[in-house]
Amino acid sequence: MTDRIAKLREQLEEPLLVTNPTNVRYLVGFKSSNAALLIDNASVRLFADFRYANAAREVDGVEFTQTKRDLLGDLATRLKGRVGFESAFVSYAGYEKLRSGGLELVARPGLIEALRAVKEEDELEKVRRACAITDRVYERLANENFVGRTERDLAWTLEQLFHDEGSAGAFEAVVASGPNAAKPHSRATDREIGRGETVVVDSGCVVDGYVSDYTRTFATGPLPDELKEAYRVVLEAQAAALNGIRAGLSGVEGDALARSIVDDTTFRGTFGHGLGHGLGLEVHEAPRMSEESGDTLASGNVLTVEPGIYLEGLGGIRIEDDVVVRDGGIENLTGLRKDLIEVG
Amino acid sequence: MTDRIAKLREQLEEPLLVTNPTNVRYLVGFKSSNAALLIDNASVRLFADFRYANAAREVDGVEFTQTKRDLLGDLATRLKGRVGFESAFVSYAGYEKLRSGGLELVARPGLIEALRAVKEEDELEKVRRACAITDRVYERLANENFVGRTERDLAWTLEQLFHDEGSAGAFEAVVASGPNAAKPHSRATDREIGRGETVVVDSGCVVDGYVSDYTRTFATGPLPDELKEAYRVVLEAQAAALNGIRAGLSGVEGDALARSIVDDTTFRGTFGHGLGHGLGLEVHEAPRMSEESGDTLASGNVLTVEPGIYLEGLGGIRIEDDVVVRDGGIENLTGLRKDLIEVG
Repeated sequence: MTDRIAKLREQLEEPLLVTNPTNVRYLVGFKSSNAALLIDNASVRLFADFRYANAAREVDGVEFTQTKRDLLGDLATRLKGRVGFESAFVSYAGYEKLRSGGLELVARPGLIEALRAVKEEDELEKVRRACAITDRVYERLANENFVGRTERDLAWTLEQLFHDEGSAGAFEAVVASGPNAAKPHSRATDREIGRGETVVVDSGCVVDGYVSDYTRTFATGPLPDELKEAYRVVLEAQAAALNGIRAGLSGVEGDALARSIVDDTTFRGTFGHGLGHGLGLEVHEAPRMSEESGDTLASGNVLTVEPGIYLEGLGGIRIEDDVVVRDGGIENLTGLRKDLIEVG
Repeated sequence: MTDRIAKLREQLEEPLLVTNPTNVRYLVGFKSSNAALLIDNASVRLFADFRYANAAREVDGVEFTQTKRDLLGDLATRLKGRVGFESAFVSYAGYEKLRSGGLELVARPGLIEALRAVKEEDELEKVRRACAITDRVYERLANENFVGRTERDLAWTLEQLFHDEGSAGAFEAVVASGPNAAKPHSRATDREIGRGETVVVDSGCVVDGYVSDYTRTFATGPLPDELKEAYRVVLEAQAAALNGIRAGLSGVEGDALARSIVDDTTFRGTFGHGLGHGLGLEVHEAPRMSEESGDTLASGNVLTVEPGIYLEGLGGIRIEDDVVVRDGGIENLTGLRKDLIEVG
């Protein structure tokens, strides 16, 4: 973690106040909902309230100061001079509070997020373990009966499988069946899964803080032709993306690898979200692949690759793998089959 | 929900842009991670990206507009004139983006949070159901063996019990044993629970979006005298608070009801967090009872009442009930016993 702080220091023009809890954890390994770091070239100061004080005193390489529960209000009275802050994380009200004591604040968004986007080998190893567990969980899920059970019941089975494999769900699973599958962000409802539908299952787990994020789409018996064809197109779009993604592409170019395949078919316009996002300590982090992305892919990024087709009233398809970006291409961390799996 | 918007409108001096997802859900019943409302005296406009578009079109009483994934950037190009915004929620970077199109932004923090703090009867009914489930789960938990199991294993049992009672955990449970119990926000670790320790179990569940939040402290066999005495003091402090809390008290006065009891003993200074917080759609919401609170309690608030004593290296005690504030006192939603429960 000393390396991370050294890399960050190369980019600092003034001391940086770090208040995003995930970034605090990334830099010094300290987990708290209410802590801050002040990093300059000479020191790393850690601030947290009473609840975290005992744990904070055990953190190596930092000078700890206990604050009030009102962390930003407390810091406003302690800090002086020109300080950078995480403007994409601090609220406008928090900014007003911070500067009330006379601090000169400089917006420095995304510095640590950019470091986090390029994974170190030990981070990749954790994501790999999360992916290996998720492979097994989805293989086991495919042996379950789907028809007649509620989406919510199946989501609980997923949770149990993750626990059984020594992990836990990283986010509230999506189990979206029939017409619900046409809503990309439907969660799990009390709808009973029927025959001849698609069931989109989007979930992942967390290992030592690092997550996986998979989607597979199951068929409960023979599907209408339109959904079968949509599955074929999504699979082809994903294969094109997996073949084409490499360091140096823009997020827009990465997205276009898959989108162009969908948009060359009658399904044009039905792939209504970005191709993928970074993942690591958080389920959604930098960089992003989408039509709106301003990012460029770099070696060491971990990305989801998840094209989809959503047909209102009928159903939906999404196939999602997790990959590491390399100079010449990708390393796919997902070992799971991706042909259309029929379940009972 | 029409009532909620009518109440909000009474306080508006200009149209209000609502971007906090919980507030959007509270006002129009729409659940999304990326949506906004623009509320003025004549209309309610709903904005969300493609992923939520189908669901957004089903929302009653709003005019829906589909936006880009970059919601604030999109809104900056659509909205004109003077607009209030939720400054405690919008990041400084989001504020800069919103105003880039020429919007005149007025900080209006906490308007909807203040409405949410006073619960309607149907909201109370949901919290009551969450509490009834949590009563049963803790009663069942007391029949489990603790000694020799890891904190994490016990946390999983809790999750299973909540599921078995038709609910789900509202947050990552705290199961903190032995010296871990001295850290108020330790979660559940791989530590094996020993004999003669306290085990602080802080968890809750969610029913129709509304949460409960309980803590009980269990003893694994006879405790050292200091912990037994600490338990007695925490229980007395909680009883004093439950007796004294009523509408009209300040958050500081509420907190002092319990704190003064602890601070009159040798445990002075070991109750290192606020007495309680509001709960409802979120586990932590307005109002707060603490030494730093600026709130005043009102009839219809739902609060946790959770004094604690934390003794570094030895253990900790916390006892937490959920109550409704009324004019003359409180209604306790927690039916669970609170004498020191010995577990095996």
